[in-house]
Amino acid sequence: MQKTKILLDENDIPKRWYNILPDMPTPLSPPLNPQTREPVEPKDLSPIFPIELIKQEVSQEKFIPIPDEVRDIYALWRPSPLYRAHRLEAELKTPARIYYKYEGVSPAGSHKPNTAIAQAYYNMKEGMERLTTETGAGQWGSALSLATSYFDLKCTVYMVKISYQQKPYRKSLMQLWGADVIPSPSNTTNAGKKILSSNPDSPGSLGIAISEAIEDAATHDNAHYSLGSVLNHVMLHQTVIGQEAKEQLAQDDEYPDYIIGCVGGGSNFSGISFPFIMDKLTGSKDVNVIAVEPTACLSLTRGEFRYDFGDTIGLTPLLKMYTMGHEYIPPAIHAGGLRYHGDSPIVSQLYADKVIDAVAYNQTEVFKAGVTFARTEGIVPAPESAHAIKCAIDKALECRKSDEKKTILFNLSGHGHFDMSAYDSYFSGNMTDIK
Amino acid sequence: MQKTKILLDENDIPKRWYNILPDMPTPLSPPLNPQTREPVEPKDLSPIFPIELIKQEVSQEKFIPIPDEVRDIYALWRPSPLYRAHRLEAELKTPARIYYKYEGVSPAGSHKPNTAIAQAYYNMKEGMERLTTETGAGQWGSALSLATSYFDLKCTVYMVKISYQQKPYRKSLMQLWGADVIPSPSNTTNAGKKILSSNPDSPGSLGIAISEAIEDAATHDNAHYSLGSVLNHVMLHQTVIGQEAKEQLAQDDEYPDYIIGCVGGGSNFSGISFPFIMDKLTGSKDVNVIAVEPTACLSLTRGEFRYDFGDTIGLTPLLKMYTMGHEYIPPAIHAGGLRYHGDSPIVSQLYADKVIDAVAYNQTEVFKAGVTFARTEGIVPAPESAHAIKCAIDKALECRKSDEKKTILFNLSGHGHFDMSAYDSYFSGNMTDIK
Repeated sequence: MQKTKILLDENDIPKRWYNILPDMPTPLSPPLNPQTREPVEPKDLSPIFPIELIKQEVSQEKFIPIPDEVRDIYALWRPSPLYRAHRLEAELKTPARIYYKYEGVSPAGSHKPNTAIAQAYYNMKEGMERLTTETGAGQWGSALSLATSYFDLKCTVYMVKISYQQKPYRKSLMQLWGADVIPSPSNTTNAGKKILSSNPDSPGSLGIAISEAIEDAATHDNAHYSLGSVLNHVMLHQTVIGQEAKEQLAQDDEYPDYIIGCVGGGSNFSGISFPFIMDKLTGSKDVNVIAVEPTACLSLTRGEFRYDFGDTIGLTPLLKMYTMGHEYIPPAIHAGGLRYHGDSPIVSQLYADKVIDAVAYNQTEVFKAGVTFARTEGIVPAPESAHAIKCAIDKALECRKSDEKKTILFNLSGHGHFDMSAYDSYFSGNMTDIK
Repeated sequence: MQKTKILLDENDIPKRWYNILPDMPTPLSPPLNPQTREPVEPKDLSPIFPIELIKQEVSQEKFIPIPDEVRDIYALWRPSPLYRAHRLEAELKTPARIYYKYEGVSPAGSHKPNTAIAQAYYNMKEGMERLTTETGAGQWGSALSLATSYFDLKCTVYMVKISYQQKPYRKSLMQLWGADVIPSPSNTTNAGKKILSSNPDSPGSLGIAISEAIEDAATHDNAHYSLGSVLNHVMLHQTVIGQEAKEQLAQDDEYPDYIIGCVGGGSNFSGISFPFIMDKLTGSKDVNVIAVEPTACLSLTRGEFRYDFGDTIGLTPLLKMYTMGHEYIPPAIHAGGLRYHGDSPIVSQLYADKVIDAVAYNQTEVFKAGVTFARTEGIVPAPESAHAIKCAIDKALECRKSDEKKTILFNLSGHGHFDMSAYDSYFSGNMTDIK
């Protein structure tokens, strides 16, 4: 029998997160206060984040211990399996070896709980009773709802109104885990009221929802705000993915030639790649790391590397990142998680320093790859994750041409059980690409 | 760190299925030909089933080898994890130890692929090009669509029309795996045409869909029919669940006092329990085995043990089983997979012989248990599986009263990602119980 999955025992869940900041070739430019344009002080962030996360955001420690209480929750689904894609390889007739790390085994169905659990834990430890956040398609909102339910915290999720109406099942999932889901713009915040007064029928946007969630947290002593991507501490928490993958590949005596992840804000990409980039930066190994984005939102491949706001309205600190501009509204595509106008500052700096590469794909070719994957490996991929599949297939086909036995690792960041309408759209032939 | 999951290596996937027939205290009554009322001959079944499955249906061999090709596919998700429900135990303040086997890790999200893979394999080996089947809510149809995609067979699924219209995402799932999904009643079979001619707006029923699928297979040389429950070979294939669970519990030096599974046709219940019932029948161990059914369809707890048809229309062989009568149409409940009018003949005979017990629950109390489970363990249970959860919780609360440290094992047969509208109905307060 050929070996399909490489599993680890739950004792092998990493005991520390890897912090890439001290290893970076160019130090990260600090976030700037939007009023003063001076570097943000920790006290500026304390109304919305717990002290421990503010420390992690700027820490120069290479490794940060993972609390046992967090590892206990991780153990409900971690270590996640690493698969050798035998059946996909056979379909592609490639000499390449394709591996994928499957993060869809979490109850929320994606990698997002890796940071949601940690954030809920630190907030609980510091006495918070409630977390607020925003969500578009609902991946992050459902992850935070799950995480807060584990620690008996309340959770308020501002969900973009059009998604609230069109994607009712992720809303149901959040409610099942006990969250209060509010369609945004809402009447519960000044930001929401302002929008509604000028446009009562506003379908909402992620930018508006962020403003509402931050205002809610900043104006309530018992509440903090929680963000699912972009920030350094989020990238940090996701590094459990790559640490496990490295240990799993070592069991097969393998080290990847290619590491591939899709990029919206950058969190699953960072999670799978940073522990390998560590080897690259310290000179012990080389590896091609590829960030995959949709043609609908070309922040890395076409954006500018400059200071920009994290939200649409311009309330957040300014971050130095590749950006399409904070007012850019990308076309509606089915991989809603990849529509962020910017990118993680760390990912951006690594791209500027040519440590990582980036490519972009249209959604029809991405869905075609997703269908090929589902029909060979079985798992239904999330549209976001299918971007990584498409790139892995392309690299495997290059290997077929050149007859090279390269090792390809990609992150299957989530399943597509709540994205079946996107597959319907693909099969109906109505799916369009961005020119 | 407390231990949460007990995992096995894929080399530990069972190498043989356990056949309970030779161990049964009362020999099984044979199926009868609906015309002659004489025992069915193997040749009567050969137009719709492959020889190997007909042999397995009546085999008196205690163990039947699992082909390597089937184990290779099982390895994509098996062995499935066994969880110790620490967080649920804490919530219930029970001294009982609760374990659950999680079958929702299969790409189709339930235990159904355990038999679908085997059936697709034997049909492929015997030269079939296409399988037909029926599906209501879509669990079985999606499992067979997945299985046929692995073996490059075509698959035709007759889906009850009202489900086809109301549950579009399971239909999408089947199409993603390449199946041809036809709303039933259809114009492609005589059975369907007959219904449509008298009632063009018929919403369909499982009985009609079975008739269409069987007619399609019987009238095409390259096609066979495939059934997802009730028959002996289906129960046989599911015994991988209980065999793995026994080995996993042994790692914790545990043997269950209670084994609990929900029952529609009986396949997941048989899967988890038969390998333990083997010990009970051969006198080496004792265990309480409990079948859980919905009050909407009380086949075991209120039905009659007699010969009845497997389908509504009366085309199938007569099976000796507990039945509500083949014309019984149970009220619409959200656990669609538990609405079958009868039960597996093996499960029925074991119940008649008092080897197993049965209880019934209303759906609101079942959903309440499902929500408790989701908010402690995280996983969203299928409404069917939530019946087993409700019974496990009741037993754990009994242990709290009596201060007994019993060991409870239940089968979490699937996830509820495609059943969120049922949870919506529960939270809205509109869910009703059967009087």
